[in-house]
Amino acid sequence: MKNSADQALTMRRRGMKIGFLGLGTMGKPMAANLVKAGYRVRVWNRSPDSVSALVAQGAVAGATPRDTCADADVVISMLSDDAATRAVMMDAGGLEAMKPGAIHINMATISVACAVDLEQCHREKGVRYVSAPVLGRVNVAEAGQLNILTAGESATLRDVQPVFDILGQRTWTFGDRPEQANAVKLAVNTMIASAISAMGEGIALSQGYGIAKADFIDLITSTLFAAPVYKGYGAAIAENRYEPAGFKLSLGLKDVRLTMEAAENVRVPLPIASVLRDNHLDSLAHGEGHWDWAALARVSTRRAAQA
Amino acid sequence: MKNSADQALTMRRRGMKIGFLGLGTMGKPMAANLVKAGYRVRVWNRSPDSVSALVAQGAVAGATPRDTCADADVVISMLSDDAATRAVMMDAGGLEAMKPGAIHINMATISVACAVDLEQCHREKGVRYVSAPVLGRVNVAEAGQLNILTAGESATLRDVQPVFDILGQRTWTFGDRPEQANAVKLAVNTMIASAISAMGEGIALSQGYGIAKADFIDLITSTLFAAPVYKGYGAAIAENRYEPAGFKLSLGLKDVRLTMEAAENVRVPLPIASVLRDNHLDSLAHGEGHWDWAALARVSTRRAAQA
Amino acid sequence: MKNSADQALTMRRRGMKIGFLGLGTMGKPMAANLVKAGYRVRVWNRSPDSVSALVAQGAVAGATPRDTCADADVVISMLSDDAATRAVMMDAGGLEAMKPGAIHINMATISVACAVDLEQCHREKGVRYVSAPVLGRVNVAEAGQLNILTAGESATLRDVQPVFDILGQRTWTFGDRPEQANAVKLAVNTMIASAISAMGEGIALSQGYGIAKADFIDLITSTLFAAPVYKGYGAAIAENRYEPAGFKLSLGLKDVRLTMEAAENVRVPLPIASVLRDNHLDSLAHGEGHWDWAALARVSTRRAAQA
Amino acid sequence: MKNSADQALTMRRRGMKIGFLGLGTMGKPMAANLVKAGYRVRVWNRSPDSVSALVAQGAVAGATPRDTCADADVVISMLSDDAATRAVMMDAGGLEAMKPGAIHINMATISVACAVDLEQCHREKGVRYVSAPVLGRVNVAEAGQLNILTAGESATLRDVQPVFDILGQRTWTFGDRPEQANAVKLAVNTMIASAISAMGEGIALSQGYGIAKADFIDLITSTLFAAPVYKGYGAAIAENRYEPAGFKLSLGLKDVRLTMEAAENVRVPLPIASVLRDNHLDSLAHGEGHWDWAALARVSTRRAAQA
Repeated sequence: MKNSADQALTMRRRGMKIGFLGLGTMGKPMAANLVKAGYRVRVWNRSPDSVSALVAQGAVAGATPRDTCADADVVISMLSDDAATRAVMMDAGGLEAMKPGAIHINMATISVACAVDLEQCHREKGVRYVSAPVLGRVNVAEAGQLNILTAGESATLRDVQPVFDILGQRTWTFGDRPEQANAVKLAVNTMIASAISAMGEGIALSQGYGIAKADFIDLITSTLFAAPVYKGYGAAIAENRYEPAGFKLSLGLKDVRLTMEAAENVRVPLPIASVLRDNHLDSLAHGEGHWDWAALARVSTRRAAQA
Repeated sequence: MKNSADQALTMRRRGMKIGFLGLGTMGKPMAANLVKAGYRVRVWNRSPDSVSALVAQGAVAGATPRDTCADADVVISMLSDDAATRAVMMDAGGLEAMKPGAIHINMATISVACAVDLEQCHREKGVRYVSAPVLGRVNVAEAGQLNILTAGESATLRDVQPVFDILGQRTWTFGDRPEQANAVKLAVNTMIASAISAMGEGIALSQGYGIAKADFIDLITSTLFAAPVYKGYGAAIAENRYEPAGFKLSLGLKDVRLTMEAAENVRVPLPIASVLRDNHLDSLAHGEGHWDWAALARVSTRRAAQA
Repeated sequence: MKNSADQALTMRRRGMKIGFLGLGTMGKPMAANLVKAGYRVRVWNRSPDSVSALVAQGAVAGATPRDTCADADVVISMLSDDAATRAVMMDAGGLEAMKPGAIHINMATISVACAVDLEQCHREKGVRYVSAPVLGRVNVAEAGQLNILTAGESATLRDVQPVFDILGQRTWTFGDRPEQANAVKLAVNTMIASAISAMGEGIALSQGYGIAKADFIDLITSTLFAAPVYKGYGAAIAENRYEPAGFKLSLGLKDVRLTMEAAENVRVPLPIASVLRDNHLDSLAHGEGHWDWAALARVSTRRAAQA
Repeated sequence: MKNSADQALTMRRRGMKIGFLGLGTMGKPMAANLVKAGYRVRVWNRSPDSVSALVAQGAVAGATPRDTCADADVVISMLSDDAATRAVMMDAGGLEAMKPGAIHINMATISVACAVDLEQCHREKGVRYVSAPVLGRVNVAEAGQLNILTAGESATLRDVQPVFDILGQRTWTFGDRPEQANAVKLAVNTMIASAISAMGEGIALSQGYGIAKADFIDLITSTLFAAPVYKGYGAAIAENRYEPAGFKLSLGLKDVRLTMEAAENVRVPLPIASVLRDNHLDSLAHGEGHWDWAALARVSTRRAAQA
């Protein structure tokens, strides 16, 4: 399908300059897909190692955030958290360097408060800002099959849809305020944690009656809970496979915390999320923060003094 | 496949007499499938209305539990709860009437304590007892596609496997103590409640940011949570469709309570289940106990004072 | 004050025959106080050892529950739980032996369901029934300084007030349905558990910042929380003094469970009690059920992986 | 005792210059007591109204934070939160104006993170910093009977003990890192919230059995829970007296949030605090944030759909 892109499309792509900030696990394959599709991509990363790989594939190296943003029509940032995003876009001058009318697509998982704040700073500068956090891990990013959750002005979202089409299988739109997409992303991530912890409780109960956890996981993921999140984390739990971490438990705590802050802003009690928060702290206290998120299920069996 | 059953198989089936106790929503199609498969089935139900429909299909009417159990090789009970099961099998003499060596398959969702107790009573009488609660609603039962969770002596389970093959698509075995299957069934049901409540929290947070709940449900059930339990309950929640109840919220509370009792027996803390219990009580206090289990998600939005 | 009781009062007391069932830790000093006050007391206990001590003080030994209840004007029961109470009063014929118009004062901590049930059984027999659970441990019982929580027909309560005056410093009345006093007693006991667990959380947080738990306990029990429950349990926690148990942690779980059942009857969510229930199970799973209730606070520090 | 202060003491006090920042409900009587004791006090407040009252009592008006701090030997700040404290001491130059070796006593309830941060900023400036949050409301502050929770270098604490002796009945010391006192203060405040919510649960359960909440409160505050915190909040709850607020429920949420942040720093799960957080959000969602903290107990009865 993408092979069928005609010359006109390629020309159009060649006409759009993209600045890409943040070449971590997710950013790297995303930027690569844009290069492959024919966009002119200038990339920047805090540590320069990942830059050279992208340059080898056809990207241009940005020396600084400012340099990377300066003549971009579209800047995509995929930085690790609020602090990194503020550091790059505000303190290091990324936003200041952007052209009026250019568009910043923030695809990272950040707080709603930060999104609200960034949107205002961009507006004051005449730069357009949209949130577009994603669902999917590295392999999904590599395949250009992410689910992209977006929010922002509809005209702006329309303008960058061709970019989303390269990166993901589907674009979801949740409103015209960027933070709306961030709220949804946080809600989904917290639901993942609730799925892991619910499996933990089911396992602890079953084990209390002498049932092997692999048997319990097999049952639920073959029947009512035959969904990617249960299958993926369930398999890791069944096999005690927590390293290397696909997504660190300590990062899960960060997302649950951001969820609770987002909920506090709009006065929403979230008692299951509260349990999840305490479970994450229990894990961290027991030195499991660097393990994969799947290890969250161990809290239930530890509290039951099970092996 | 079942059409290819040869005459020998039919003969074998005609040689096994089944007593079936409890023709509720689930029991009726299950008994019907056994009749259709060629078994000789005597049926009994507290209220006699459902009996006549089965008789029209080829079953024989049992006058009493005792009468229904008396010459059965296999008794299947699908009664509403612990109390109904004890009333029929113990007080009304069902067990007493059974032949030594006959088998009682209890397919209802009962407590582990009741299962332990029943197993012992049966053993003392020389009657074999297995637990075989099921996953699946009416339409699944009608199609003979239930998932059957079993536990009990392996020889006994082997003897009744042909019966399970009529009723379900797959039989799962969890050990040689009948209550093990009940523990698993309760764990799964409580996981369903946790899925509903987790959706409730996700919706309440999203709504706090102006996102329609149907959009949130659409996202999650199209991606990470594309599993029957989320799709089914999610659709009901998105459409505010709580009546008629497929499974009443008040029955959900019963199952969560049985889960917590089962957990207490083996000293397993279940903090998410605890939240679920309180959510059910909140629903009941607000007059929603007769609604479908999906209505459990409303607790989250009510607490946030959302419409 | 009690010394000033004149001869008339003594005569009145000699005219009332009391049957006392259950000479455990609490029952023994309570029965002794009644004997000392001049009542004619017939005592019964499952294990006969404690009976002889009471007989030495002037009580008469009852051979059986039935025998102890037969000619009593007032029967006081202080049995360990629902099951013991039913066994003695129903199965062993205690109630059946009672005279019409006689009064049964049940001073044990039992479930509201059991209280409702007993009240009805007594009414059918023409025997009057009141609930009168108490606040206070052994030394308070010895001093006749219990707080007595009562509910039942006001005329009946008036008739037995002289007995309460011997046993306690103050009688509290909560309504004309006996189970009302049991509900209050359970609510108070669960508040005790919440005080212990709240101290546990305060300690875990403080210890996280290097503050000794004795210092934290000293502060709170010298200021805002200068109440018996915090001082008593706080001192035990500060000194790691969990044996011998004044009140076993496993009994605390029983009371929390009864509270939750009572709450479920009237559809009241109790999220703090839910946390307490899970904390008790955590303690039991770690082999601490035989320790004093104060040990419940250890769950918080264990979950934080603190020493 | 304080009357017996001899002339020498007065002289000593005249020799110490105090800058006092923040004349809110608590700051005003505290500053007044220092003036009354003979200290030379320069006061500053964001809104100048409260300044004149203090000036009438003998204080000197500071024009700005900088001016107020400039020649002070001791600066006391009693500002509303982290943000106000940072604004006054950092942004408005309070700290910058202080003399090397001078002492800043921060008596407000702030976060541990803020305390850690301030301590470092002060250290870099050569200014000594101690935390000294207090227990007690306005009337206690007026009477100079506060309990003062302190942490910081022991020599510094010794130097300012005479000031603490004017403001409080007792000084508690928790370590040499200022944030230790803040951690304890937060732990205590969260225990207050747990006492209020535990009463709420006890009331909801009792009311479910037809018992008036005033009767329940009377019982517990006359017996096991005869402590200031239960008596004070209990009376307000019993009388539905939530306005004017002595301490606003919305401020309670702030303190619970700071507690949870403090706990996250040191990886301590706090499940009761988590319930409290959700209860506060439930109250705020229902428009009760401006009411007195006692109103937190209403969440329990609302969830039970009680009047």
